[in-house]
Amino acid sequence: MKTANIVLRFLSPKTVVRAHCDLPCGVYDPEQARIEAESCYKIVEKYAANDDSAYRTRALLIKEERAQLVKHHLDVLWHDYFKPEHVEQYPNLHETFWKATKQASKVKHTVDPGAARELLTMIDTIDEMWKATGGAEKTRVNGRPS
Amino acid sequence: MKTANIVLRFLSPKTVVRAHCDLPCGVYDPEQARIEAESCYKIVEKYAANDDSAYRTRALLIKEERAQLVKHHLDVLWHDYFKPEHVEQYPNLHETFWKATKQASKVKHTVDPGAARELLTMIDTIDEMWKATGGAEKTRVNGRPS
Amino acid sequence: MKTANIVLRFLSPKTVVRAHCDLPCGVYDPEQARIEAESCYKIVEKYAANDDSAYRTRALLIKEERAQLVKHHLDVLWHDYFKPEHVEQYPNLHETFWKATKQASKVKHTVDPGAARELLTMIDTIDEMWKATGGAEKTRVNGRPS
Amino acid sequence: MKTANIVLRFLSPKTVVRAHCDLPCGVYDPEQARIEAESCYKIVEKYAANDDSAYRTRALLIKEERAQLVKHHLDVLWHDYFKPEHVEQYPNLHETFWKATKQASKVKHTVDPGAARELLTMIDTIDEMWKATGGAEKTRVNGRPS
Amino acid sequence: MKTANIVLRFLSPKTVVRAHCDLPCGVYDPEQARIEAESCYKIVEKYAANDDSAYRTRALLIKEERAQLVKHHLDVLWHDYFKPEHVEQYPNLHETFWKATKQASKVKHTVDPGAARELLTMIDTIDEMWKATGGAEKTRVNGRPS
Amino acid sequence: MKTANIVLRFLSPKTVVRAHCDLPCGVYDPEQARIEAESCYKIVEKYAANDDSAYRTRALLIKEERAQLVKHHLDVLWHDYFKPEHVEQYPNLHETFWKATKQASKVKHTVDPGAARELLTMIDTIDEMWKATGGAEKTRVNGRPS
Repeated sequence: MKTANIVLRFLSPKTVVRAHCDLPCGVYDPEQARIEAESCYKIVEKYAANDDSAYRTRALLIKEERAQLVKHHLDVLWHDYFKPEHVEQYPNLHETFWKATKQASKVKHTVDPGAARELLTMIDTIDEMWKATGGAEKTRVNGRPS
Repeated sequence: MKTANIVLRFLSPKTVVRAHCDLPCGVYDPEQARIEAESCYKIVEKYAANDDSAYRTRALLIKEERAQLVKHHLDVLWHDYFKPEHVEQYPNLHETFWKATKQASKVKHTVDPGAARELLTMIDTIDEMWKATGGAEKTRVNGRPS
Repeated sequence: MKTANIVLRFLSPKTVVRAHCDLPCGVYDPEQARIEAESCYKIVEKYAANDDSAYRTRALLIKEERAQLVKHHLDVLWHDYFKPEHVEQYPNLHETFWKATKQASKVKHTVDPGAARELLTMIDTIDEMWKATGGAEKTRVNGRPS
Repeated sequence: MKTANIVLRFLSPKTVVRAHCDLPCGVYDPEQARIEAESCYKIVEKYAANDDSAYRTRALLIKEERAQLVKHHLDVLWHDYFKPEHVEQYPNLHETFWKATKQASKVKHTVDPGAARELLTMIDTIDEMWKATGGAEKTRVNGRPS
Repeated sequence: MKTANIVLRFLSPKTVVRAHCDLPCGVYDPEQARIEAESCYKIVEKYAANDDSAYRTRALLIKEERAQLVKHHLDVLWHDYFKPEHVEQYPNLHETFWKATKQASKVKHTVDPGAARELLTMIDTIDEMWKATGGAEKTRVNGRPS
Repeated sequence: MKTANIVLRFLSPKTVVRAHCDLPCGVYDPEQARIEAESCYKIVEKYAANDDSAYRTRALLIKEERAQLVKHHLDVLWHDYFKPEHVEQYPNLHETFWKATKQASKVKHTVDPGAARELLTMIDTIDEMWKATGGAEKTRVNGRPS
């Protein structure tokens, strides 16, 4: 380990620069929230198209979990990725996140596909803020995959 | 709900087509595994650059969790996204996933950045298979974000 | 079940009134966050008083979990308990929560007892807002126990 | 860290005294079980007042989780807070906990509000034992909040 | 589903008899606790044989999780499998479980292999009680595998 | 700890031999998957025998969790227990695991007891492979309990 440590110090000068960034700030991407929100959207579509009661029960419980994961991933971005300078840049940052998490609750409460689509739009707004503040270049290893 | 159901059946003919796809096959994207694997990679870099013992303990425990999430997201793709026709197309599909999950274990066991980088490469190979079998068009709501 | 339903409607008129409140808004109390934050505080004290390395490793990992639970319980209050009218009443509501969750991150990152004590103070501020907006009367079954 | 350690040893003599208490015995409070049990109680009320089937499915699944958390928090108190001398003081301690966890199972199995209320009463009994054995003074940082 | 229901009612009269048994009492086996406790035992052995500090940190955190799972599986047996008539048959049933869960805590607190071995012995005692009260015949589908 | 370490090195020569096995390869047993799959089987039986809708909702959600645990335990065996030499011995090893995890998905999707029984049979096949490759002797502390 000692050796790996020393070799890395020489080969990866970027490492030292990044060291100001505290664990676990490493990697952030609104894609994580978006993927779960897309699941909610598709679940609601399928729910509407299938009236078997066992199927619907499963759809509701999986939607509950997925919407909870949306909230979790949004929370991580809000807590850990965004910094005070970003709030100056986006004075409505807190409000945007708050409404998005409340929308994720609404997605739990309803089987209305409009609510799930609205959540996707809200995550896209957050995605724009993420991009404008460094986003992929700052947090992903080689940017976002195409 | 009944009304929503009927309205949706008329407005969204795609819904019915998608109904063959069983819950929870909805949305799959190797990005989920990749994001967690990038965390592992960055954690290992930071570990090498910081020899405070409390910091290193935290780095190891967070890496353990992240690598476990890599395994989980790979498992979901292997179990649920890939179908028998894909195994015909990619006879080494199982072997590829198996080695990638074993690599994720290796990332747990070591602080060698090469192991974490190798895991990223393996996930990229899976990403290619995912794209070649429909990928974003088949599973994401509006494709991958740029 | 039907019978229970009817009996309850007669015996508990409050039930009907509460029915506007959507699941899972039921019960909220900053005590949940505070109890976990007190664990962090005591863990940091014990960490300082015991230099056995296995003990310290365990202290760090348990602190990590407890601080994560603080964040979770704060998130739930922010997402689900507080409503737009409360933001009018407390224009710094979002900022208060944001700083408290960032403080919980700091408690993960450090073994400084001052950081853990500061987190307790921040939760107490949230507790005041909770009390002033209905708090125990609105959300607990028989108020807070003495 | 070394410095923090030394400073703390001088400033906080209580730390050393508490050091006999092993991690994670730090903080215990039956409030954690009670808050989750109150959720169960309110969920059952709302279930009775709303016959929408999607709503009821969600109510049942959230009740299942909350009742599981009641069991978990009771288990922690029983395993870790109570010591052999408390069993001498309360010879029915084990029986009390056993019945309370079985009651939490009953709360899972039924939508009878009486079962949820009975669980609250049982937790209050445990709360009395906790208070009589040191309770808030022994385990909370500044006692219970009013 | 209806058809499956009717067919099953005719083919599996045992089903109806079992219906008094409430979900989730289905299947219980102390093997679940024992397997996790064996992990703890092996982890402690490996810890003693390897003094690399990253390895030891991982060993401690995995032991913590495994010992927690031991407690969980013991709790399930105590809460849900054992009934009042078993307490008459084994007046020390509660004490046996209580001491076993306290021993699992001890296994968290220490790297002493004796503590882990003692936990295995205690689980074997519970296994005897499980066998003597119906055990595999009552709860497993085809008994325990050889 | 140092002392324990030294004493153990002398008393337990097996420890050193086992040290090649990396954490967390310690203990593996298909029993873990089988017990959860038996729960699924019994849940499906009970579902068929009880048409109360709240009961059925709970049955579906508990089955979902249990089937997920089956997948998890199978994944652990596939990732961590089986090694390249076992794939030479069982060229259909990957296919066997893949089908078993897909069968666990089917058990989530359906209340057909045949699907749950088929999953048990598939786990028994994996159990045979586990036994033939060392199984209990290699991974359990004292073999499987009778």
